Amino acid sequence: MNSFGRIFRISIFGESHGLSAGILIDGVPAGLPLCDEDFEKDNERRRSGAKGTTPRKEADKVKILSGVFNGTTTGAPVLLLFENTNTRSSDYSKFTAIPRPGHADFTSSVKFGGFNDYRGGGHFSGRLTLGIVAAGVIAKKLLNNITINASLIEAGGMKDIEGAVNTALQEGDSIGGMIECRVNGLPAGLGEPFFDSVESLISHMIFAIPAIKGIEFGSGFSAAGMKGSEHNDNIISPEGKTETNHAGGINGGLTNGNELIFKIAVKPTSSISGTQRTINMQTKEMTDLQVEGRHDTCIALRVPVVAEAATAIVLADLMMLENKIQRIIK
Amino acid sequence: MNSFGRIFRISIFGESHGLSAGILIDGVPAGLPLCDEDFEKDNERRRSGAKGTTPRKEADKVKILSGVFNGTTTGAPVLLLFENTNTRSSDYSKFTAIPRPGHADFTSSVKFGGFNDYRGGGHFSGRLTLGIVAAGVIAKKLLNNITINASLIEAGGMKDIEGAVNTALQEGDSIGGMIECRVNGLPAGLGEPFFDSVESLISHMIFAIPAIKGIEFGSGFSAAGMKGSEHNDNIISPEGKTETNHAGGINGGLTNGNELIFKIAVKPTSSISGTQRTINMQTKEMTDLQVEGRHDTCIALRVPVVAEAATAIVLADLMMLENKIQRIIK
Amino acid sequence: MNSFGRIFRISIFGESHGLSAGILIDGVPAGLPLCDEDFEKDNERRRSGAKGTTPRKEADKVKILSGVFNGTTTGAPVLLLFENTNTRSSDYSKFTAIPRPGHADFTSSVKFGGFNDYRGGGHFSGRLTLGIVAAGVIAKKLLNNITINASLIEAGGMKDIEGAVNTALQEGDSIGGMIECRVNGLPAGLGEPFFDSVESLISHMIFAIPAIKGIEFGSGFSAAGMKGSEHNDNIISPEGKTETNHAGGINGGLTNGNELIFKIAVKPTSSISGTQRTINMQTKEMTDLQVEGRHDTCIALRVPVVAEAATAIVLADLMMLENKIQRIIK
Amino acid sequence: MNSFGRIFRISIFGESHGLSAGILIDGVPAGLPLCDEDFEKDNERRRSGAKGTTPRKEADKVKILSGVFNGTTTGAPVLLLFENTNTRSSDYSKFTAIPRPGHADFTSSVKFGGFNDYRGGGHFSGRLTLGIVAAGVIAKKLLNNITINASLIEAGGMKDIEGAVNTALQEGDSIGGMIECRVNGLPAGLGEPFFDSVESLISHMIFAIPAIKGIEFGSGFSAAGMKGSEHNDNIISPEGKTETNHAGGINGGLTNGNELIFKIAVKPTSSISGTQRTINMQTKEMTDLQVEGRHDTCIALRVPVVAEAATAIVLADLMMLENKIQRIIK
Repeated sequence: MNSFGRIFRISIFGESHGLSAGILIDGVPAGLPLCDEDFEKDNERRRSGAKGTTPRKEADKVKILSGVFNGTTTGAPVLLLFENTNTRSSDYSKFTAIPRPGHADFTSSVKFGGFNDYRGGGHFSGRLTLGIVAAGVIAKKLLNNITINASLIEAGGMKDIEGAVNTALQEGDSIGGMIECRVNGLPAGLGEPFFDSVESLISHMIFAIPAIKGIEFGSGFSAAGMKGSEHNDNIISPEGKTETNHAGGINGGLTNGNELIFKIAVKPTSSISGTQRTINMQTKEMTDLQVEGRHDTCIALRVPVVAEAATAIVLADLMMLENKIQRIIK
Repeated sequence: MNSFGRIFRISIFGESHGLSAGILIDGVPAGLPLCDEDFEKDNERRRSGAKGTTPRKEADKVKILSGVFNGTTTGAPVLLLFENTNTRSSDYSKFTAIPRPGHADFTSSVKFGGFNDYRGGGHFSGRLTLGIVAAGVIAKKLLNNITINASLIEAGGMKDIEGAVNTALQEGDSIGGMIECRVNGLPAGLGEPFFDSVESLISHMIFAIPAIKGIEFGSGFSAAGMKGSEHNDNIISPEGKTETNHAGGINGGLTNGNELIFKIAVKPTSSISGTQRTINMQTKEMTDLQVEGRHDTCIALRVPVVAEAATAIVLADLMMLENKIQRIIK
Repeated sequence: MNSFGRIFRISIFGESHGLSAGILIDGVPAGLPLCDEDFEKDNERRRSGAKGTTPRKEADKVKILSGVFNGTTTGAPVLLLFENTNTRSSDYSKFTAIPRPGHADFTSSVKFGGFNDYRGGGHFSGRLTLGIVAAGVIAKKLLNNITINASLIEAGGMKDIEGAVNTALQEGDSIGGMIECRVNGLPAGLGEPFFDSVESLISHMIFAIPAIKGIEFGSGFSAAGMKGSEHNDNIISPEGKTETNHAGGINGGLTNGNELIFKIAVKPTSSISGTQRTINMQTKEMTDLQVEGRHDTCIALRVPVVAEAATAIVLADLMMLENKIQRIIK
Repeated sequence: MNSFGRIFRISIFGESHGLSAGILIDGVPAGLPLCDEDFEKDNERRRSGAKGTTPRKEADKVKILSGVFNGTTTGAPVLLLFENTNTRSSDYSKFTAIPRPGHADFTSSVKFGGFNDYRGGGHFSGRLTLGIVAAGVIAKKLLNNITINASLIEAGGMKDIEGAVNTALQEGDSIGGMIECRVNGLPAGLGEPFFDSVESLISHMIFAIPAIKGIEFGSGFSAAGMKGSEHNDNIISPEGKTETNHAGGINGGLTNGNELIFKIAVKPTSSISGTQRTINMQTKEMTDLQVEGRHDTCIALRVPVVAEAATAIVLADLMMLENKIQRIIK
């Protein structure tokens, strides 16, 4: 299902090398000021260009095609569109027969009977995160006293991220990374019992982002090796403030008013310069594959802003469900 | 929202010390043989009693209250009910004022204005996983040539799980654990693009299980420290078989036909015998807290069968979406 | 899908002659006083016994199996169960081979490959409206200053409803009826644009009730023959009060603050005493059919309370979406 | 919620005088040939220009912005966009203060706190049916052996529709109309029990179309005045063919394999030339209102193709749920 959320609800569409990518957002409260410039900062953070990211450059200028009138949202669905302009599709035609290791070439071809748009990963491209970032801009505006900060804290297993990227560039290889996201200013009691726990909803959204392979909240995987006496966070104020924060700000699936913290693991970019082995689906024989074209050395560099947006989208929806964001902004 | 799934869709309800816990399942295909005995094995795996688990013992006998006729499912919703019989509610009354560290006492009280059923965690109790396990029994029957196996591979940070539990028992402490789940026999192409990636759906369900704090697919968090040349799985057969399986059986959010593997982190049981510090919400002052009552030393011992059920539920739904399980079983 | 609603969300289950029928309700605000007696009045209105209704009598005593603690709702899902006790299933076995005209025997058998519970209509029985009425009781409590009144205004085409029923009883025939539902006290602005217009949601729920074949809002089908100058309702107060009410209280799919009015058509009970013609699915030949067993002469007599409940359920959900009912009742 | 459907799922957006209107469709099977020309015929049927319809003329040329590659659908979401070009917004500015009788001016302003796009009805405009018609084109292609035909059978209460329109034009008034829709070639067993009955789903979609005030299936409101012996349709073939069709092709909410028939009532266009009475929301006093601008004398003339599309959308989804339309078209 291409949709997510209950009140603040997003529906995604688009392809890497088709005409467009974007997002349709339902349930945006009326009366929120919104203009093209609002999207620039986060789009810029997401955009390629830094060392370790793909040389493909798109203007990535948003078009607000519905739901905004006289500079504010109207309460009707908001369509945000990004046109694709800088595409070089001839790079990709051969991957229909020869699926790239690590990519969705094989799986999407099986799923859609070969009718999938294979160019640049098509609908499975990281380019679709443009829509997530854009929806996140609106969600962040709704969460006005809540701050969400994600950052890359490790790349290729190293804290010296720039060094790790340089080494990988020299080797023609790619590297993964670890991202930490912290949210402050949340009220206690967000999240719904059982299936719509805060962890459930955030992980659902986070794993929709291409290349994510793990998520942990608070002490996460370390908690598996801890004792209860170490892990339990003593409560030290009537507002629920805790002495430690092993729970990552969530108890019983609900926010507890402390900092919400989670980490996510980003796998190395699947496209690498080196020779790889795969199958030629036409000849049914194994073959060498050399992936050319533009790609990121460390896709994780571009993920923090996407993770923030994903988090903001989930939290905006939960805040609306709790009536902490009204349907008309005054 | 207390529901999950698109066609094979479950809705959960119940409390630890109320009258019942259970699950309502929509979209179960007609014609599936189903009887009370089908639930016994997995319920027994989940039930308390082993060393390290709570001495509370419930019969946990399922009542099939709708959707089955003459020994087979009818296509109508299936209601599975478990009555609560062995409850000692007086143990819990004081936690309304004095929230236990690590529990949902504080957060659920905030969310529901103090109207929540606080006895034994109420709706936030691990007892609700009875319904998940029961729905999992049906899902597993639908996935008849697909095998799902979850097991506890570490407890308290140790591979010697029995030893770890014994130590914790002696210390009056609790420990967490790590669970690995492996699925074999899956077709390629399951999962939906973007929001309903296989990782998104499985993690959503897994984090609904109380005490889970992390999940990783394939090489997961290790992938964050790897190079693309290490992580990419070479494809070695026209059916998509890969040489290695760092992807954990998923590319682009879709199954690739290889073994699906993920690991989950279970935090230590929040209830421990030792003295803890928390706030008395009435006096607004800090206080010592001694949690009595029955509880598990290592709740992770009981999670594998729940994780299997959660996985089966997600996969049954995806198989139905792909028409690989028909709406009438013949 | 056996569920309906976005926040106040119901999931239905059960069979006419199985063990139970009932409803599971998610999103019920916490803090609403609720006890068994609350259900008696509307259940009594729905129950059989009046002239023209089936002689089958069930106690129809609700069991509140989850979501209520110390006499108030907790915010967790509420399960309401009705056990079936007074069933005579042998009456129905032959309809597997010989489908009754007007009933779901043929269609449900096709849909579920013959695995459906055919006894008394099984899951397609009017008995399932017990759950709707019960959920409606809760919805009405939430809508405390809003009044919903439905009544039978015609039966068998006559305003003299008692006379019409008597005649039909003498003839061994059944009759249909027309019901009018009026809602007062609604705020303006309920309903969501386009797909979740008030008419869309109410009609969706109303047509879930067995035997309903038509619905019209305000002047409805008469409007098709009117001129705009006749049909338009002049607005005569700043609160939106209109001079006439041809719109039935809805403009653009949203409530306008005037009385919400709609009418629904109930077909005659399908079970009649006279001989009917149908097919024997085993011999593939036409045959006479004489339907015995207990049935209503005029099922429409029992529909008003169900229609009220359906309406209340929709409106409670819309009020919650607009934050006009909070998630904690104070 | 701006979305509808479970597998074949549409999400609508747009405004009458904003930049665009359109629709996003999820769940479209892969492999369906699709090009711009496919939309022309139904768009032409919907377009203004005939006598009795508004003189506003839009090119209404579809832009397929995602989900199609090399002339066939890919399985990814399909975005269909219509740009608005021929708009004259100055006509509408005064309706913010002076709501037009029969329109959504008042209700949408209340709902969205005055932030709604009021121009030409904004998001509440009949122009949004462009998206419905476009999605219907795809749905009809999927339902290839099923025929759906809707036609206007009465206008202003008369069978002589052209005469009725001419009279209304001369009088500067508007008229309503009655539309009949017939579907042939459906299998038996479509529809889901209870909430997703065929009547529930079709009525939900139909009432999303602006100006619809009633719907009836088969003999509909006449059934309320009938006897069971008249209304029941004798079954005369093992395939479920019935002698009469008072049920309109639906029993128990499921299709029975006979012709599906329903009628809908369209109210007169709200915009009329004559003077009307309404409130000036600024002065709080009543005032005369003269609605100028372009509008339809008989909006019902344009509804048949929209009703067909709405029906096709519902049926395509139900066919996919029953696996009668596969997710890859071969």
